[in-house]
Amino acid sequence: MKTITTLVVAAAALGFSSLASAQFAKPEDAVKYRKNALFVMQQHYARVGAMASGRAPFDAKVAADNAAIAEAMPRLPWAAFGEGTDKGDTKARPEIWMEQAKFKAAAEKMQGEMSKLAAATKTGNLDSVKAAFQATAASCKACHDDFRQ
Amino acid sequence: MKTITTLVVAAAALGFSSLASAQFAKPEDAVKYRKNALFVMQQHYARVGAMASGRAPFDAKVAADNAAIAEAMPRLPWAAFGEGTDKGDTKARPEIWMEQAKFKAAAEKMQGEMSKLAAATKTGNLDSVKAAFQATAASCKACHDDFRQ
Repeated sequence: MKTITTLVVAAAALGFSSLASAQFAKPEDAVKYRKNALFVMQQHYARVGAMASGRAPFDAKVAADNAAIAEAMPRLPWAAFGEGTDKGDTKARPEIWMEQAKFKAAAEKMQGEMSKLAAATKTGNLDSVKAAFQATAASCKACHDDFRQ
Repeated sequence: MKTITTLVVAAAALGFSSLASAQFAKPEDAVKYRKNALFVMQQHYARVGAMASGRAPFDAKVAADNAAIAEAMPRLPWAAFGEGTDKGDTKARPEIWMEQAKFKAAAEKMQGEMSKLAAATKTGNLDSVKAAFQATAASCKACHDDFRQ
C-alpha cells in the first residue's frame, strides 16, 4: 500500500515539470503511452458514469474503487506531450504546444474535478456523485474541444 | 495523495476476484485495457532497466519514481482476462484460461518481484537495483514463455 502512495509523487515528478519526450525511446512511444494511460482512465471513469446516469445500479464501493483509479491515471499522460509528439497516430491539436499554459490549466482543471468525483463516491451519496460526474465530464469536454481533433 | 493510497485497494477489488469481462462493454475493450495498462508499466520499468544495465546513468530518484509506477500498474490488467477475451488483437495463449491458477501464480510472482524492485530503488544502491531488476525480468519472461504467443 505504501509503495502506491508514492505514485502521486512519482507521477508529479514525471509530469509537467518534464515536458520533454527524452524519457521515451521514440515519439511514437510517447503518443502510445499517453493514449494508453487515458484509455485506462476512461474505462474506470465510464463505470462511474454508468452509475451516475442510471445505466447501472449504484454501488458505492464499486464507484469508489473505479473513481480512485480514474483519479490516479490522469497524473501520468502529460509528460508524454513533449516536442515531436504532435505527429503520428494522434488526435492532438497543435494548440497543445502553441498554448501550453492553457493546456496545462485544462488538464489540471480535469484533474481537480476527477479528485472531487473520487471524493464524492466516498460519501456514498448518489446525488453528489451525479453532480461531480457532470462537472468532470464538462472539464473533459472543454479540453477535448480545444485540444483534440 | 490519500486518494492514491486507495488505488491498491481499488485495483485489488477489481483484480483476480472478478475474473469476468462483465465490467467491460466489449471483449475488445478488455483486450485493449490490459495491453494499455501493461504498456504503461513497461515504459516505466524500461527506464529502471536502462539504469540497471548501464545504458543510462543511475539516478536513484528517477529510478524510484519510475519503479513506483511500474509496481502500481500491473495491479490492473488481470481483471481484463475474462471469458471471451481470448480473441482479437491479442497474443494471449489459451493456457491463460486453461491453467488459471498457474497464470495467477505467475502474475503474482511478477507483482512480488516488481514490489521488491521498487523497494530496491529506494535504497539508492545500484547493485540492489540490478539484482532486483534481473529477478523481475526473469518473472516477466517466465510468464511470457508460458502464456504469451
